[in-house]
Amino acid sequence: MLDIFAEIRDDLKIVEEELVSVVQAPDSFITETATHLINAGGKRLRPAFSLLGAKFYHYDIKKVLALAVALELIHMASLVHDDVVDSAVTRRGIPTVKSMWGNRISTHLGDYIFGKSLILISTYDNPIIPRVLSDTSVKMCEGEIQQISTVLDASQSIKDYFYRINRKTALLIAASCQLGAVACGAPVSVHGPLRRYGHNIGMAFQITDDVLDLVADQQQLGKPIGSDLHQGIITLPVIHALERCSFKERLREIVFKEVKTEQEVQEAVELIVSCGGVEYANKVALKYIQKAKEELSLLPDIPARDTLFTIADFISIRKF
Amino acid sequence: MLDIFAEIRDDLKIVEEELVSVVQAPDSFITETATHLINAGGKRLRPAFSLLGAKFYHYDIKKVLALAVALELIHMASLVHDDVVDSAVTRRGIPTVKSMWGNRISTHLGDYIFGKSLILISTYDNPIIPRVLSDTSVKMCEGEIQQISTVLDASQSIKDYFYRINRKTALLIAASCQLGAVACGAPVSVHGPLRRYGHNIGMAFQITDDVLDLVADQQQLGKPIGSDLHQGIITLPVIHALERCSFKERLREIVFKEVKTEQEVQEAVELIVSCGGVEYANKVALKYIQKAKEELSLLPDIPARDTLFTIADFISIRKF
Repeated sequence: MLDIFAEIRDDLKIVEEELVSVVQAPDSFITETATHLINAGGKRLRPAFSLLGAKFYHYDIKKVLALAVALELIHMASLVHDDVVDSAVTRRGIPTVKSMWGNRISTHLGDYIFGKSLILISTYDNPIIPRVLSDTSVKMCEGEIQQISTVLDASQSIKDYFYRINRKTALLIAASCQLGAVACGAPVSVHGPLRRYGHNIGMAFQITDDVLDLVADQQQLGKPIGSDLHQGIITLPVIHALERCSFKERLREIVFKEVKTEQEVQEAVELIVSCGGVEYANKVALKYIQKAKEELSLLPDIPARDTLFTIADFISIRKF
Repeated sequence: MLDIFAEIRDDLKIVEEELVSVVQAPDSFITETATHLINAGGKRLRPAFSLLGAKFYHYDIKKVLALAVALELIHMASLVHDDVVDSAVTRRGIPTVKSMWGNRISTHLGDYIFGKSLILISTYDNPIIPRVLSDTSVKMCEGEIQQISTVLDASQSIKDYFYRINRKTALLIAASCQLGAVACGAPVSVHGPLRRYGHNIGMAFQITDDVLDLVADQQQLGKPIGSDLHQGIITLPVIHALERCSFKERLREIVFKEVKTEQEVQEAVELIVSCGGVEYANKVALKYIQKAKEELSLLPDIPARDTLFTIADFISIRKF
């Protein structure tokens, strides 16, 4: 858990306990695999955003707990299903469920975890919560499927990239910020700014993720560098570099090769960096951070607003 | 569509149209694969049960349509995820592109279809509907995971089998019957009998399915005979035969072999039939049918009740 979450640290511990408790199953095998997944860690960004969103009205952890846990479960379920498809062997430096138990278990375990989130969501009377989250979960799939169908696709544009990362990442973070407030009964006037803050943060977060996949310290990141390139996933720095690079023919040759050697990926990364692809992507991420901060000015001046401001800054400078 | 659905045939057509319309996506690839899936057919049993359940109050197709479509989508999503295979882990650690794409599409398309069902469910104000369906979807996963983890497991009991088929099949059929009535605002007095009717029908349906997997006409069934045995899934006739068969050593030898030849499966089927495994399972199915019919006597005497009665009889005599 990050230090910037000091204000909600105690309640994030409650979320953590509830996460473990909620995935207990009659079948000990399910409990074991699901608990493995939770103990593998994660930044718990989505629960944190929902708690911070909830601070903008009569904050009550009892009202927002089920939502906070549900958001992390939705996120975890999508990661488990991601692992089925991209045959990743480690995530956050820890073996994935798929590599330990196989594709079929991953598929059903993801469904199980997602189903548990639905039970939590169904405890809310406010219809906005299930409506936003069901819409979000459908769009998340659209993003994932678009990612699959554009692998090694040389014709994809920056617009396609934004469509994808909005669905893959930004929508659930936007929902987290908004629905935390909704769960505590906050007036509509705070929903919009919180949701748009989350959207912009989410976009910046994913762009930074895609940059780190190219230039992070491998040990800090907990997964191999260049894994997007290996998988044929074309991210913002790459799209930019393919347009601008002086050696664009060579870059194109590597990027759209079905199977790449480590050396080729390294060469591609160097070309992308040298022609400003990473710098450009960082600039775009900063613009989203800026927009996120502007939304905060529409919200009441409370400590949670400062925290959201600090998180915005953290997103753009994080190294893992 | 079966003839016994005459009473609801027109409304089942509306369900069919809505099924196609609801899976349209901005991405033409998703629309294409999802439509393919819907056009591949199916008995539409769950929508039919929900419409028939709805007949027990102020029937209105507009009120029950979203539920009927959602139920079929949940069922379809679970079938798609069933198709996910483990080729990725077995082929020298490197999955073929073809097998990987199969898994990718199955996983995300299943999630997409399931997500669409959630959007439909979120249109209902009555909290019973999302609560029953989220609970059901979690338990369905428990059943699927138990099935995977008991493959070739010689220690499983009849109790394990009932646990599994209740979760895999009966719960969603029970929910279909009950929630149809709930969607039309029916009083609690009809929920219980409809739910229990559905439970018993669902158990009988799955037992019959497992029997047909051994003894059906392959062409009528539309899939190879003995596929459960091939996959190491131990069903009721097999459990019974393993206890009672005079050649139980030979039967055990075949059943728990990891890879079986066609001839071995054929031999196992003959042993199971000859020692009364199929006869026993058919008897158990008939008991469930009987219990289902008893529940109907607690319901008002309307044409839909006769239809449910006829369906009960059909389940036990069906050949595919």
